[in-house]
Amino acid sequence: MKTFNLCFLGFGNVGHALVRLLGEKSAEMREEYGIEWRITGVATRRAGWIASAEGLAVESLLSGEFAAGSSSSQSKSSESSESKSNESSPTNVREWLAAARCDVMFEITSLEPLTGQPAVEHVRAALESGAHVVTANKGTIVHAYRELRSLALARGRHFLFDATVADMPVFSLFRECLPAARLHAFRGIFNSTTGVILEEMERGRTFADGVRRAQALGVTETDPAYDVDGWDAAVKTCALVNVLMDAPLSLDQIEREGIRGLDAEDVRAARAAGRPYKLVSRAERDAEGRVVARVGAEQIASDDPLAAAGGTSLVINFELDILPGLTLTAHHPDLRSTAYGLLSDFINAVRAET
Amino acid sequence: MKTFNLCFLGFGNVGHALVRLLGEKSAEMREEYGIEWRITGVATRRAGWIASAEGLAVESLLSGEFAAGSSSSQSKSSESSESKSNESSPTNVREWLAAARCDVMFEITSLEPLTGQPAVEHVRAALESGAHVVTANKGTIVHAYRELRSLALARGRHFLFDATVADMPVFSLFRECLPAARLHAFRGIFNSTTGVILEEMERGRTFADGVRRAQALGVTETDPAYDVDGWDAAVKTCALVNVLMDAPLSLDQIEREGIRGLDAEDVRAARAAGRPYKLVSRAERDAEGRVVARVGAEQIASDDPLAAAGGTSLVINFELDILPGLTLTAHHPDLRSTAYGLLSDFINAVRAET
Repeated sequence: MKTFNLCFLGFGNVGHALVRLLGEKSAEMREEYGIEWRITGVATRRAGWIASAEGLAVESLLSGEFAAGSSSSQSKSSESSESKSNESSPTNVREWLAAARCDVMFEITSLEPLTGQPAVEHVRAALESGAHVVTANKGTIVHAYRELRSLALARGRHFLFDATVADMPVFSLFRECLPAARLHAFRGIFNSTTGVILEEMERGRTFADGVRRAQALGVTETDPAYDVDGWDAAVKTCALVNVLMDAPLSLDQIEREGIRGLDAEDVRAARAAGRPYKLVSRAERDAEGRVVARVGAEQIASDDPLAAAGGTSLVINFELDILPGLTLTAHHPDLRSTAYGLLSDFINAVRAET
Repeated sequence: MKTFNLCFLGFGNVGHALVRLLGEKSAEMREEYGIEWRITGVATRRAGWIASAEGLAVESLLSGEFAAGSSSSQSKSSESSESKSNESSPTNVREWLAAARCDVMFEITSLEPLTGQPAVEHVRAALESGAHVVTANKGTIVHAYRELRSLALARGRHFLFDATVADMPVFSLFRECLPAARLHAFRGIFNSTTGVILEEMERGRTFADGVRRAQALGVTETDPAYDVDGWDAAVKTCALVNVLMDAPLSLDQIEREGIRGLDAEDVRAARAAGRPYKLVSRAERDAEGRVVARVGAEQIASDDPLAAAGGTSLVINFELDILPGLTLTAHHPDLRSTAYGLLSDFINAVRAET
């Protein structure tokens, strides 16, 4: 039995869902894996760097009171005076990790797609401090996968990211369950917002109606353009290519076309013909061994493995050297599914240590 | 880098495919996992217990010459004189494992559905001798999962069986990628033969035509009744319930109905209506926590997650506490896919030792 100090960098919806799930799964983690935990650090833009090596009160975290400095005695003092010692009042990520005596850092800030910063710098600091890092932030994979993988390896720490793509255990599947398998190609539907918008258009509503419905469902990024223009799908495609095909593809090498150009009538006609439009990601290794990837609207026939993904469901089809086709479909994943991706990475990062 | 002594108990189509795949993946296993291997034992009903701690010649194994005693000098002598020492001429599984200095035993004999014997006894002997066991034989799971799991745990050995169900990494997925997740229910299509027969009937051919076509494709068990009457699907369902739902369900507790009772006209009409018949396995935990399971023909709507499995493809849909639905589909798996299930288990059994 071992108690792990957990730090949350970013504390939005996913962070709240993770805290609730950790609570719910506590007994199981203790009994099955010998894992206990306490939250010793939370950092947000608004609240700053809050740390208490003795642990912050979970209830206060969930009610948002920590921002006002009431989550524990130690964090209270770190709120009330900014110029204390590093131990009690950290002013940057390294001081924060040290003050929290962090064992596992959850990097769950929102994505900065162009540079991946400051998340990359934060993950680097955490690995250098000797913490495992679990992230839901695709930016770190897209912009610094090789560097962070090497750093984690050199420090004997884990850098895990099953929560980044499609709300299914895709990366761990390849790492743990498909050793020595070769991935030739994949195709997938990775973006819920565009799925919802296209379905609304098929029902005769407008593109703008679709955006509003996706926002009401809570699946849309803050800026819908990020989903609609294919950025979200491209970033996920880029992460998959880098990790699963071990190809150093950058985001600007992915041909990218969103769904804005689609005509509403075409969208309805395609559905009526049983071949609806979806925003499809695809990557393939060409004859020279280079990986070519693109994101764009495609019509999907009813017998296509990707046809299973309606509504907010996500799907990925792999072409492997040892199995002609393997398809994984996540039906209606929610915030809890994303939180579980982080929880399972946490368990996998530390299960050998207990 | 470490060299592992491999023993094959049973050496039919799957064994041959595994030897070829091991050859193909040798460089990769060495470079990525530090694993080297040699085959030091082969046992079949016809050839007896053949062992050579120095290694048997792979080419001879594939050409079937080992049966005539020409696969290596040591096995030659073990063939030519039956009454030598245990080292050179084993007469039972324990002597064989010792003579072969077995590190990993592949148990790939064909299933004896009613008792699982003698496979269960062989697996027990291998684990007791200190070898890891990797099996494609569902009988060991259905009849002795708990005992063999405990024995493996007590000896610090692995007992792995990803090759037993649906030609996909289902057991390793739950073990490695879905820690602390709860499986409420599953549904699946696990039998290729009945899929092929039903599709032939949909095309206006007879049940007997369908059986012949499945046999021509090489997917049918020696006795087609085993597929047609739902035994194969029931055995796989039983294995999944025992391992993934941790429920000690026996084969006779599974309600089982095959496809013989289906009327050819009904089968055609169902397909025409877009809701074709499939042999579906399902299991669910009821309100009292007991698992109820059944195998039978069901009509599958086009938007059902199981609809993706046409022809010889296999599919399984999981209902989890952390994701409303997760579906895995293996499209057109072949002998090589089964062999890969064994290879990946071998890598996973030993990757921590190198």
